[in-house]
Amino acid sequence: MSSPSHLALVPFVSVKNMMALVHHIGLETFLTELTDEIEADFKRWETFDKSPRLPSHSDVGVIELMPTSDGEHYGFKYVNGHPKNMRAGLQTVTGFGVLASVDTGYPLLFTEMTLLTALRTAATSAMATRHLARKGAKTLAMIGNGAQSEFQILALKAVCGIKAVRLYDIDPSATQKCADNLARSGIELIHCRSAEEAIEGADVITTATADKNMQTILTDNMIGNGVHINAIGGDCPGKTELHRDIVARASMFLEYPAQTRIEGELQQMPLDHPFTELWQVITGQALGRRSEDEITLFDGVGFAIEDFSALRYIARKITGTSYFEHLDMIADPDEPRDLFGMLARAKSAS
Amino acid sequence: MSSPSHLALVPFVSVKNMMALVHHIGLETFLTELTDEIEADFKRWETFDKSPRLPSHSDVGVIELMPTSDGEHYGFKYVNGHPKNMRAGLQTVTGFGVLASVDTGYPLLFTEMTLLTALRTAATSAMATRHLARKGAKTLAMIGNGAQSEFQILALKAVCGIKAVRLYDIDPSATQKCADNLARSGIELIHCRSAEEAIEGADVITTATADKNMQTILTDNMIGNGVHINAIGGDCPGKTELHRDIVARASMFLEYPAQTRIEGELQQMPLDHPFTELWQVITGQALGRRSEDEITLFDGVGFAIEDFSALRYIARKITGTSYFEHLDMIADPDEPRDLFGMLARAKSAS
Repeated sequence: MSSPSHLALVPFVSVKNMMALVHHIGLETFLTELTDEIEADFKRWETFDKSPRLPSHSDVGVIELMPTSDGEHYGFKYVNGHPKNMRAGLQTVTGFGVLASVDTGYPLLFTEMTLLTALRTAATSAMATRHLARKGAKTLAMIGNGAQSEFQILALKAVCGIKAVRLYDIDPSATQKCADNLARSGIELIHCRSAEEAIEGADVITTATADKNMQTILTDNMIGNGVHINAIGGDCPGKTELHRDIVARASMFLEYPAQTRIEGELQQMPLDHPFTELWQVITGQALGRRSEDEITLFDGVGFAIEDFSALRYIARKITGTSYFEHLDMIADPDEPRDLFGMLARAKSAS
Repeated sequence: MSSPSHLALVPFVSVKNMMALVHHIGLETFLTELTDEIEADFKRWETFDKSPRLPSHSDVGVIELMPTSDGEHYGFKYVNGHPKNMRAGLQTVTGFGVLASVDTGYPLLFTEMTLLTALRTAATSAMATRHLARKGAKTLAMIGNGAQSEFQILALKAVCGIKAVRLYDIDPSATQKCADNLARSGIELIHCRSAEEAIEGADVITTATADKNMQTILTDNMIGNGVHINAIGGDCPGKTELHRDIVARASMFLEYPAQTRIEGELQQMPLDHPFTELWQVITGQALGRRSEDEITLFDGVGFAIEDFSALRYIARKITGTSYFEHLDMIADPDEPRDLFGMLARAKSAS
């Protein structure tokens, strides 16, 4: 059997290679570059085909497909969300994705996206925080110290200059894990025994909790004026993190209204609740923070364009490196109409 | 760096392994078993989550995602359709797909689906023909002798007992290629110089042409009473193969109305044009052919459940064989909340 042609071969970034690539680039550099990549795509928001992700819900979780295209490239991510997985020793969120050529429909990159999703989610929070937090913000409260937390913290350190983080999780062992992982990061780490304690004096609050039912991690009387909140964990129907009164008091910024309406904190609010699309703040078409006292809220649910940016970033970064393999993914006969002949010749050659 | 855990590894069927698996099983046996697998899933049609596929159209083609779930497994296919690709030496249709566990969201199988799509499309035509053609049908007219044609012909031989095929393509070299490939198949092959000549005396007509604009490969005065037609090539908006008068005269059977309405021959017809869902014929809830004189038309566009059946069939068939590799696709840290720790340890171990 002859070797597949180069058209049959798609670059594949395994988990092992993604980890090696991140270390090759440097984690904080990676997060900073990825933040800029996402921001560049938010600046050309209107060039993208956009739709809410396509979910398949079950009693225990959700599997989603997240496609988008800028007319030159097409990208999609497969991602699941299964809060119960953690108890079985599995990841709550795993994913993989593909970048393809719109011109031919052929895939250009296939990559793991469990790690990459954590990285792009952190980069997106950093982008929102860069545009919405008070100037000189130094202290972050990180509520929920699970798989996303270290990435969120390091992105805010690298991109926004955060110096100290106040950690809280309902499970103290998660806080300990997060603190151990960041012991040599240069960030000051403060263990807190309640969400209320964690947000004391914080300039930025990031919530990243995972349970799939209406939570009120933060209630209204806890929140001081002037903070910026990234609410990251509420990302599917019925899953919210903030008390409705906080959402009502804050100025809300979001990614794609049609998706946030059914997945974000916005699902708690009436249809006429005001919000600003984040891309319009980035392009200067809309105002971000209006005063030092304003509470700004980024109601982040994760949108396909962020994955598209991440896929393009990886495709560029692996070029000329050894951080990928070739997968024999696309049947590519010598004569395109002769798929059958390729199959038949494989038999005689084997 | 330590090896990935078994949870990180997803079975991957490359093009090379798919070809080897087909030969291991035997092509006609494969087509017969796959037809039965699809039919078994059509029998439990109501247990599936169904939606029209999610397309991303451009001037030159389309990229589509086709998900479905039966509550136990979730499957999706990525597939493109780029008629112009052929002239550039590329496949018009390529694809790959994933089967996953609904319970955990973890992928169970990743496979090439360029070959597998040709096989399942042929199996679906065979299933429709088995239920709709006249008993004792022996002669097939195959209009369009491109990449799909040999698979369509062999499936109708294996499943429906077709003995002779009348071949026609606007490009005689395609017909020659098809005839050469089937020279030792045991089917009588008749080269025809027009579509009109090809359908003379045929019991079954299959059209599989690829151009993305309104075609009328067959016109009404060509079609005799009693034939069964599989119209396979019209599978996206603006792409049809049959003259409207044929569609009007035939009894129409189709897969999923919401998708066929925008992609199939049905797009030519008024909203109240009658049709029967094929799954209801298979379960006995609706009548198929009512008389020897009736013209039956399967307006096939390809539906996600057929790919789901194919994914499950492949997942079962590769078990215990060497026709797959393991891909390091899912980040799976020892402690599920410690994704960051896995990344950090990869650095110190490298």
